[in-house]
Amino acid sequence: MCQLLGMNANTPTDVVFSFTGFATRAEEHKDGFGIAFFEGAGVRCFVDNASARQSPIAEMVKRYPIRSDNVIAHIRKATQGRVALENTHPFQRELWGRYWVFAHNGDLKDFHPKLHAAFRPVGDTDSERAFCWLMQELAKNHAGTPDIGALTETLREIAAPIARHGSFNFMLSNGQALWAHASTRLHYLVRRHPFSEARLQDEDLTVNFAEHTTPNDRVAVVVTEPLTTHEDWIALAPGELLAFVDGEPLR
Amino acid sequence: MCQLLGMNANTPTDVVFSFTGFATRAEEHKDGFGIAFFEGAGVRCFVDNASARQSPIAEMVKRYPIRSDNVIAHIRKATQGRVALENTHPFQRELWGRYWVFAHNGDLKDFHPKLHAAFRPVGDTDSERAFCWLMQELAKNHAGTPDIGALTETLREIAAPIARHGSFNFMLSNGQALWAHASTRLHYLVRRHPFSEARLQDEDLTVNFAEHTTPNDRVAVVVTEPLTTHEDWIALAPGELLAFVDGEPLR
Repeated sequence: MCQLLGMNANTPTDVVFSFTGFATRAEEHKDGFGIAFFEGAGVRCFVDNASARQSPIAEMVKRYPIRSDNVIAHIRKATQGRVALENTHPFQRELWGRYWVFAHNGDLKDFHPKLHAAFRPVGDTDSERAFCWLMQELAKNHAGTPDIGALTETLREIAAPIARHGSFNFMLSNGQALWAHASTRLHYLVRRHPFSEARLQDEDLTVNFAEHTTPNDRVAVVVTEPLTTHEDWIALAPGELLAFVDGEPLR
Repeated sequence: MCQLLGMNANTPTDVVFSFTGFATRAEEHKDGFGIAFFEGAGVRCFVDNASARQSPIAEMVKRYPIRSDNVIAHIRKATQGRVALENTHPFQRELWGRYWVFAHNGDLKDFHPKLHAAFRPVGDTDSERAFCWLMQELAKNHAGTPDIGALTETLREIAAPIARHGSFNFMLSNGQALWAHASTRLHYLVRRHPFSEARLQDEDLTVNFAEHTTPNDRVAVVVTEPLTTHEDWIALAPGELLAFVDGEPLR
């Protein structure tokens, strides 16, 4: 199994603290890591088929505070597909003049959808097939970019049949929102004013967010297993899909 | 104007030496840089809208010897489009289950092609429009991935009408070949056995390739302006398009 980390904020925010805790878990998830940062419509996606504990790319990410509105990170333990760069999450495609980024934690059995349109997998994972199918079905359902609410409705409808093939925890972003779908394990929290101190569960590192934020800042963090102690993480229910916009879940 | 660097090799090769010389030229080309490394079908594309002279990402690329079959790098001086991440080359799309990467040096006047298919620009550069149009026309001309020779023929045909809009030096790769098209300035050389010493034109750095290679290695380097002294760089003719496969031009 793999682990996922996502961030959605109302002001460009760095994820150095969360990624540092997350990367510590890479010991058991050593078959590659990846992280995608949106800055407006632009995205940079760093992937490495080395472990996030040793990768010089992960080291750079921990030191270079890239400020981003939407982030998706993934550490991989290969279950389907070889250990190869083309099988490393997040995956990226373009639809309606926007980049879309996707990462998956779980295992889909016998999922071989008909991919007849413009989205074909490059690698050989169940995850990339699921992503290509999501993109294909979004494109079929809407002629251009609909609003976040309509997109979320469509995603709920098309995620359900995939989830029947196994476990399908995923994160998806187009730079405007972060969608998180839970099948087995996914937690989130919203950090907002008044900000307090947080301590990483896996590393001896504490950050006082009050020193790094303004009262208007709001950040949602979504992750497989809670990253900190002293904070109240909320578990997503099985089958739940949430859209995060401006640092909080859209209701 | 921007600068381009490409590498195609018959065995995975690092470009630390060439990229170091290339990045030195970023003083005048300070509006971002990007570099894409293919490893088989997989690709990693690092982009930054900071100059390659200051970017921590460029620093990491210079220190981490990523071994790759095909590399495309670009340093940008904005002529069309804002300085923004989504306007930073190389651009990446997927076609026929393969990633395609593209970077452009030049200026296209009044180039607003009809993009009715699956490839839409995310940013607002003439370069990304040209790339989307190339992808669209390749998809129209072939049902699946044709061989390199056929692809090269199609690219020659569809590059010509774009080049009429201004200067169109570009590099394109799908991980199987590196295509280079010259409109004004592009040079290449092939390094092969017996390897010798090379000295960077812009930095006080010398490498003896004989120490780092085997007699079977062959590497083609394509660049806007020659990177080294003591080596014979060949200028591409205006309108010339070459495909590089296994470290040499396909004839």
